Amino acid sequence: MSAPRHVTDLTTPALVVDQEAFEHNLQAMAEVLPGPRMRPHVKAHKSTALAKLQARLHEGFTCATIREVEGMAAAGLGDDLLLANEVVDATRLGAVVETGARVTLAVDSPETISAAAAGGVREVLIDVNVGLPRCGCPPEAAGALADAARAAGLEVRGVMGYEGHVVGNPDRAARVAQTETAMQLLLKAHGDVGGDLVSAGGTGTYDINTWANEIQTGSYALMDSAYDKLDLPFRQALHVLSTVVSVQPGWAVCDAGLKSLGMDHGNPSLADAAGDVWFCSDEHITFGPSSPLKVGDRVRVVPAHVDPTVAYHDTMWLTDGDTIVDAWSVDLRGW
Amino acid sequence: MSAPRHVTDLTTPALVVDQEAFEHNLQAMAEVLPGPRMRPHVKAHKSTALAKLQARLHEGFTCATIREVEGMAAAGLGDDLLLANEVVDATRLGAVVETGARVTLAVDSPETISAAAAGGVREVLIDVNVGLPRCGCPPEAAGALADAARAAGLEVRGVMGYEGHVVGNPDRAARVAQTETAMQLLLKAHGDVGGDLVSAGGTGTYDINTWANEIQTGSYALMDSAYDKLDLPFRQALHVLSTVVSVQPGWAVCDAGLKSLGMDHGNPSLADAAGDVWFCSDEHITFGPSSPLKVGDRVRVVPAHVDPTVAYHDTMWLTDGDTIVDAWSVDLRGW
Repeated sequence: MSAPRHVTDLTTPALVVDQEAFEHNLQAMAEVLPGPRMRPHVKAHKSTALAKLQARLHEGFTCATIREVEGMAAAGLGDDLLLANEVVDATRLGAVVETGARVTLAVDSPETISAAAAGGVREVLIDVNVGLPRCGCPPEAAGALADAARAAGLEVRGVMGYEGHVVGNPDRAARVAQTETAMQLLLKAHGDVGGDLVSAGGTGTYDINTWANEIQTGSYALMDSAYDKLDLPFRQALHVLSTVVSVQPGWAVCDAGLKSLGMDHGNPSLADAAGDVWFCSDEHITFGPSSPLKVGDRVRVVPAHVDPTVAYHDTMWLTDGDTIVDAWSVDLRGW
Repeated sequence: MSAPRHVTDLTTPALVVDQEAFEHNLQAMAEVLPGPRMRPHVKAHKSTALAKLQARLHEGFTCATIREVEGMAAAGLGDDLLLANEVVDATRLGAVVETGARVTLAVDSPETISAAAAGGVREVLIDVNVGLPRCGCPPEAAGALADAARAAGLEVRGVMGYEGHVVGNPDRAARVAQTETAMQLLLKAHGDVGGDLVSAGGTGTYDINTWANEIQTGSYALMDSAYDKLDLPFRQALHVLSTVVSVQPGWAVCDAGLKSLGMDHGNPSLADAAGDVWFCSDEHITFGPSSPLKVGDRVRVVPAHVDPTVAYHDTMWLTDGDTIVDAWSVDLRGW
């Protein structure tokens, strides 16, 4: 089969990325957070091809899994990789360090510090809970963990603390106030920990969080309908292209569904005001079309959450209008 | 890396299948619906290795995607494959037919009939809407579509009609009544269409739907917490094995999340009464543990919906206790 050249050549469902919107998003972010002020998070797109375009504007990267670290390093993007997550076995990360890549690992407990040291990781950040009940030590415990890490022979580069309970708040004034509260906790911990890095943030607080000195953002590049509610300057670059397979009295059905869309943020929506989504099944979206559709028509679906949507697919197709200009492998999936 | 022999060798998150529960499920189904009375649906597990075990007890299979049909035929499981879904381009299915496999395709419109004939498919079922607003023609339109299919040179094997609006109803008496209502519509359409097959059903109506002469069930083999609410005789065979990576005052965090779990049915739960799930993030579940846990402990997660959970993974590990006895590739993913 020859490589698809036009969106009509694609087997659906398929991820398509609008080049103009994507490039706008990268530029809009880099204007506010140039170079090392932003550390792109690859978990949102899981693609080294996309990351290479971010690497023109920024320096280090953020990863969520060991597999992402391995893949980024293997792709030549290993100058400064932060695994912003805890692991209990860092052996594979140590092997990446041995190849010459720089890997910094989040730690929040004596056990994860021991794992880092035993696995051959040399640099860590102390992960601090700033309000989201997830990983991260209590702020008052950060200093002692930093001491323990240094005693284990690790370089402590600073702190990280993700205000994940804040980034999705649609009320900007509330986001500002909540971010300040969260970052005061992180800065206090930083005072106890030391090091150069104060790493935090997300797409929803990229221009609000002026307390951290590097911001981790992922969703901005491709976007989704959840972040679109926040009135950010980023455009919807990613769609799931689908085909109408059935038209019935009152509704139509297209061939995207639960296996091509992350559903934790609820139903997707349809671009181009094509209609209202009723519900999703494994391989179907049933929707009320806003104007008559025919079997075979294409419909573009806007995912509600970009990260778990992309993780279902092996390729993103970069498009200029209806022309396919590149194929990006989603090569960082799995663990 | 050598093949894992024990669950402690697995990189988490990982899909594990309890062999005893799985074999119980296959036997319990085959006792009620032996041989051709049940046509297993591969969409739930997307694995030819698992399907080969179902093929010891049943004959044909149900598929949801062209990719599933191709993969099943290539694995030698192509004696009688039903694609219970509409497609607008059947060329790839015609190529499967050319290899000697038997492929029957659902159609519900003149366009999908034309696609079947043009693509080289020889046999179809008329897909009838029996109450779920998705694919399927109005019952009163089925006879004319069958005539059109025969006029296009296609063999019409009968009808299908999925009572998907019924299968999840926790009230068994209501499921019985709703199934009868739905199947009366299907039998009336069958009278207009002819052919041998009346194909319908799902795990939730497998022992209720006595009107259809073959039942399509998928979830029963592995199960999920949504179907577990129906008091069926099937056991939870599938878990997402995860590792505790952080323990904080009041909660713990394990390394399964939105990219290893289908979320359309809501949050997963924890097996072994390990605790209550608070929320899921991309690579984390935050939960309140029911007894003290340590970093590094393993937790088994029960998915709320089996199909979109399996579709995130490339392997299922078959286990006998904590010993790994087989690795099943999830080889039917994608489209």
